[in-house]
Amino acid sequence: MAEDATTARGRGRARGGGGAARRAARTAVSVETARFIERNIPNFEILDAEALEIIEANAETLLEEIGVAFVENPQALERWRDAGADVQGERVRLPRGLARKLCATAPARFTQHARNPERSVEIGGRSLVTAPVYGPPFVRDAEKGRRYATMEDFRKLVKLGYMSKWLHHSGGTVCEPTDIPVNKRHLDMLQAHMTLSDKPSMGSVTEPVRARDSVAMCELLFGADFVAENTVLTSLINVNSPLTFDATMMGALEVYAEAGQACIVSPFIVGGAMAPVTVAGTLTQVLAEVMAGVAYSQLIRPGAPVIFGAFVASIDMNSGAPTFGTPEASHILYGAGQLARRMNLPFRSGGGLCGSKLPDAQAAYETSNTLNAALLGGVNFMLHSCGWLEGGLVASFEKFVMDADQLGVLHQLARGIDMSPTGQAMDALYEVGPGGHYLGCAHTQANFKEAFWRSGLLDYKPFETWDEEGGRDTRALATERVARQLADYQQPALDPAIAEALSDFIARRKASEPDAFG
Amino acid sequence: MAEDATTARGRGRARGGGGAARRAARTAVSVETARFIERNIPNFEILDAEALEIIEANAETLLEEIGVAFVENPQALERWRDAGADVQGERVRLPRGLARKLCATAPARFTQHARNPERSVEIGGRSLVTAPVYGPPFVRDAEKGRRYATMEDFRKLVKLGYMSKWLHHSGGTVCEPTDIPVNKRHLDMLQAHMTLSDKPSMGSVTEPVRARDSVAMCELLFGADFVAENTVLTSLINVNSPLTFDATMMGALEVYAEAGQACIVSPFIVGGAMAPVTVAGTLTQVLAEVMAGVAYSQLIRPGAPVIFGAFVASIDMNSGAPTFGTPEASHILYGAGQLARRMNLPFRSGGGLCGSKLPDAQAAYETSNTLNAALLGGVNFMLHSCGWLEGGLVASFEKFVMDADQLGVLHQLARGIDMSPTGQAMDALYEVGPGGHYLGCAHTQANFKEAFWRSGLLDYKPFETWDEEGGRDTRALATERVARQLADYQQPALDPAIAEALSDFIARRKASEPDAFG
Repeated sequence: MAEDATTARGRGRARGGGGAARRAARTAVSVETARFIERNIPNFEILDAEALEIIEANAETLLEEIGVAFVENPQALERWRDAGADVQGERVRLPRGLARKLCATAPARFTQHARNPERSVEIGGRSLVTAPVYGPPFVRDAEKGRRYATMEDFRKLVKLGYMSKWLHHSGGTVCEPTDIPVNKRHLDMLQAHMTLSDKPSMGSVTEPVRARDSVAMCELLFGADFVAENTVLTSLINVNSPLTFDATMMGALEVYAEAGQACIVSPFIVGGAMAPVTVAGTLTQVLAEVMAGVAYSQLIRPGAPVIFGAFVASIDMNSGAPTFGTPEASHILYGAGQLARRMNLPFRSGGGLCGSKLPDAQAAYETSNTLNAALLGGVNFMLHSCGWLEGGLVASFEKFVMDADQLGVLHQLARGIDMSPTGQAMDALYEVGPGGHYLGCAHTQANFKEAFWRSGLLDYKPFETWDEEGGRDTRALATERVARQLADYQQPALDPAIAEALSDFIARRKASEPDAFG
Repeated sequence: MAEDATTARGRGRARGGGGAARRAARTAVSVETARFIERNIPNFEILDAEALEIIEANAETLLEEIGVAFVENPQALERWRDAGADVQGERVRLPRGLARKLCATAPARFTQHARNPERSVEIGGRSLVTAPVYGPPFVRDAEKGRRYATMEDFRKLVKLGYMSKWLHHSGGTVCEPTDIPVNKRHLDMLQAHMTLSDKPSMGSVTEPVRARDSVAMCELLFGADFVAENTVLTSLINVNSPLTFDATMMGALEVYAEAGQACIVSPFIVGGAMAPVTVAGTLTQVLAEVMAGVAYSQLIRPGAPVIFGAFVASIDMNSGAPTFGTPEASHILYGAGQLARRMNLPFRSGGGLCGSKLPDAQAAYETSNTLNAALLGGVNFMLHSCGWLEGGLVASFEKFVMDADQLGVLHQLARGIDMSPTGQAMDALYEVGPGGHYLGCAHTQANFKEAFWRSGLLDYKPFETWDEEGGRDTRALATERVARQLADYQQPALDPAIAEALSDFIARRKASEPDAFG
């Protein structure tokens, strides 16, 4: 099960030069990617049926009596009016049951295709797909500290994602490349995902035109016919909580839904600020927001794939800072998962969330609390699975590989307990008996290789060995791993005609408008 | 909810000197201890009924056909023969159903009394009682590094446990005081727990005579009549896995069971070495061992309180080192919890287990994986809840306060989701509406103090503030917290006559035999 022990399956086509030849000559480089998780364990159901029904009834009341705002979007208001909503100004009130009825056309599960078909993912049902951190304007590593992220950092993070066995998805804005004009960086980001990785990725949502660019680039990568018939992008549509849908995000959602591409409709909530301070109140708002957003996606195109999202942090009432890995956030994740399953929708939440400024013990406690809740809470799409630091302001190179390693724990946990005759191991129990030792017995010899998950990063050595080797902490081990993975990286093969078409598209689009920053 | 924000409830009676007077003058010192956890959330049930029945049937087969060994303990063999077992040499084979029938007299739940009645704990049912690390021969802190533990270290750890809000139990061998003769250190350890803390503690198990000393000291502390009628000790009886019960541990169990004192019957398993490499095989062996040990306790005294224990680590097949916080260990914990509940016995497992040599991210990932599994897996008594480092070889002062802080997360998680009208927060949702902000609303003002768990240790400050204050990691914050807690420590009041009686007993016992080391 060890990441480093897996068979090398280099798909790389080394490009030019002696360096590439040397890299190609190495044989032990692993670029194996585990298949997305299919859970063979139950979900953790924190709420009983009565509690769920109360929250659902309250959410309907909220939609009916308070409603939601679709701002600066007359066309959306028109669509809602046609669908039977009560529209006053920008406020949209939905008769009880309307939203849920509209949501019913959304698929329970869909495939997001990768350009390498082996890396396509199923989102929904009992699956869990892991994707890296999204959105940080800063990066941090041990060598150069905390600094604004650049396109070079972005490319490094995409490469690390490609090299991470337990990561299924290349993600989207793994960091903000602040050295590229804001109206053009989506082009470079998409190109990086499409050419430096062969895992599935996300589209731009910061302007509708950038969403259209994302679809257009997918048409170059996959072929227009394929894109017309299949989902090749999953993009993140944040709700402007409480209860507000802005024109930018809805514009992107409209583009993607029309194109049959997937959106995560995701309330972005710091509890106590954008939602009530209580868990049940927050769940009510989350459900109302998701129902309104998903219903709207189905007004655009019935059957468009969409994910029930819930990004939730707590708040430190002393400082106002968002906090992560907290028990309230776990409560909300567990409850939201149940609400999503009752809507028969895929569920997005969780991630390696933390508030720590360093990839230290705080970061790891908070991250593990969230990762464990995400697995047991039935998350289907886990953005921010690795690399998230400092409340999402920072993408940490070290934490990227640290968290990515821990995702292996989730894979093995999800397999559940083998109850086959081999799993029952009665032959071993008979063979060894009281006072014996299992290391040498036949059953152990036959099964030990697959028996235990093994970290590819953490230190399992005896104290003396570890001490002699410098007594390094996890961060130092991660620094070394980042460097090794980047050195070992080999670009996955891509038809040069496609790579050129992408470059041409980007050059044309960049030339078509002046640079804009901020 | 913050540890540092709790009302000061100093129970201390400052003793002599200006330092003590200065300490007594401080008003902000918190020595509040949270009540043991009563879960208001479901358990995570990883195995279905069919799987549980297979494991139970296999365990009966194991007891019937392979049996268990009671070594160097003729009286135990006699008891087994009288109870209907097939005894050949030291091997005891139990007819199907005998062990389970004998176990039925053990209580499902019991109270372990503390000398401060407010700190008594209920063990069993839906409770979770947290106790600190047990057994390390070494200690580590940032200042002096890793070294053999001394009695002075032991006392400091007991004081830290007394100061830890989310820790309910003072534990037992929080470290091995290697500077005290091995045949006398149990006396000093018990004295430390009894005089430096008022939380419940554990008895010695390393020789039957030391168990008798433990009971005798409890009689001095609580009164002999009280001890005759009540449980005041919970002690750790490890099974010598596989399937072997040695005379030392069984001798201690006999003493405690006869005295109506509680024992944890706990297989100590490194999977692949002391048990099969598979989870179901390990669960089968654990169940057989616990059933035999618990049944034996009930042969000594029907109704003696006893706990179903399962200490399980994985093994790194490369190095042979035990590993912690692994998915296989979580599988076993979840499954063992189900087996314990089906026997209607309290369940011991989990803890802040890790293999890391430092209180770093590895330690925290592994610890959180185990703490979360322990809460959801229905653990009733969690030894090693805080301070465990390096596979249990080291008690870490910093990790003690780091883990003890995280136990607060479990308390809040266990409370479940408030579905009262206040929890539902419909008034807040009506008040704020689309685009509003909850920070100032009436519902938030009325409820924010209790809304969110807040760490007493972790850093929630903005980056700039944190950076200006030195950019410290969690370990550095913990170093400071250890020093502050030890400086703030005030000894809980104890009748001087009792303290003197304990000292006299110890002096007499120490004088009665020569020192022995090792």
